[in-house]
Amino acid sequence: MITSDLGDEGALSPTERSTVRRHPDRAQADRRALDAVLDSGLLAHIGFVDESGQPFVIPVAYARDGDRLLVHGSTGSRLLRHLATGAAACVTVTHIDGVVVARSAFNSSMNYRSALVFGSFHRLEGHEAATAVDVITNHLIPGRVSEVRANTKKELAATMVLALDLTEASVKVRAGGPSDEPEDLEAPVWAGVVPTRLTASKAEPGDSRAALLPIPESVRTLIAKLS
Amino acid sequence: MITSDLGDEGALSPTERSTVRRHPDRAQADRRALDAVLDSGLLAHIGFVDESGQPFVIPVAYARDGDRLLVHGSTGSRLLRHLATGAAACVTVTHIDGVVVARSAFNSSMNYRSALVFGSFHRLEGHEAATAVDVITNHLIPGRVSEVRANTKKELAATMVLALDLTEASVKVRAGGPSDEPEDLEAPVWAGVVPTRLTASKAEPGDSRAALLPIPESVRTLIAKLS
Repeated sequence: MITSDLGDEGALSPTERSTVRRHPDRAQADRRALDAVLDSGLLAHIGFVDESGQPFVIPVAYARDGDRLLVHGSTGSRLLRHLATGAAACVTVTHIDGVVVARSAFNSSMNYRSALVFGSFHRLEGHEAATAVDVITNHLIPGRVSEVRANTKKELAATMVLALDLTEASVKVRAGGPSDEPEDLEAPVWAGVVPTRLTASKAEPGDSRAALLPIPESVRTLIAKLS
Repeated sequence: MITSDLGDEGALSPTERSTVRRHPDRAQADRRALDAVLDSGLLAHIGFVDESGQPFVIPVAYARDGDRLLVHGSTGSRLLRHLATGAAACVTVTHIDGVVVARSAFNSSMNYRSALVFGSFHRLEGHEAATAVDVITNHLIPGRVSEVRANTKKELAATMVLALDLTEASVKVRAGGPSDEPEDLEAPVWAGVVPTRLTASKAEPGDSRAALLPIPESVRTLIAKLS
């Protein structure tokens, strides 16, 4: 379904910067693991460095499109204009899956899945950019593109679309319960996990006109995805 | 309650790098807005730059402690060791508050609250570090420190604790419904918001011993906070 040019096993490239150092047991060298983290997220944090060497970390909507990651925004966006120059970037998507409550503070932790993608964005133009905008819209609100009018030329001209190839990435996952010290197991102290999840439970119409219409399929799909 | 040395109004410093350029209407120049975003988050994304100029964005647990932000981890952590050198950092905490479904794809958006804190971390030592570890534990699991044994000297020796002063930050918020084009309002297309939230609904005991014990106050408070 998803093709990969990352090797026979769809393995993620084990470069210097994408190698997981802390808890290598939590690293997942599988392209499907990367896709799963990216496909179930709504927001990425993009890191870049300005001229003075200062790092910035900015939250942005995104979508995966096969072997690349897409972002878009206003042509006036400082972030996008900087990324469009081919500046080095790191895109991180993290899911908070739970709080791990150990019998000691030291062994308490969090469950999470995170993906870091390294590389440089390049700008998409014309038809390719227009298609990419649709992919991002449908990632955020599944199937929405077929429910609304097409983007106008003016809207597309005001939108910058950037793509980053998924050639260098790392995925790190912590799952399961606490790992307590053997000597703590006898203590009469509760230990376990509080699972967490980004959820949605309802759709709120924006105005009285919308309130008269049924909730569209795209929105129902989004809520089901986040239920 | 929270003291601030950021000026009469607790205003955030309007420096070059902390000035919100896109949608300045979404900027909040209020220290309480910063504290609110930081206090209700579980995970921050820390950006830093390595020797080669490559940015990294790493998810970490954190806590606010008055006028500073705390992080901790293994003394062997590459991230923490790099930050401890005083390297430039950007710490971003983002809450995804909803998907904004407009009558056009172009005006669809996300509701969010994000805080960016700029500066350099410094390492805490001794009693100050030990206290900071407790603050982070209690941020993650409210009141947990009083339910478990104290951290041992060995555990504290294996833990690096860093602090970043909250002197330079920006907060950006998008809330409310879609802003549709006037010409789209007549279309028979639903528009509104799907509110999203990081939620927890239950505590899962980690083993049969824990299953025999009542859910502790700290965990019940955490679940209530995320309900």
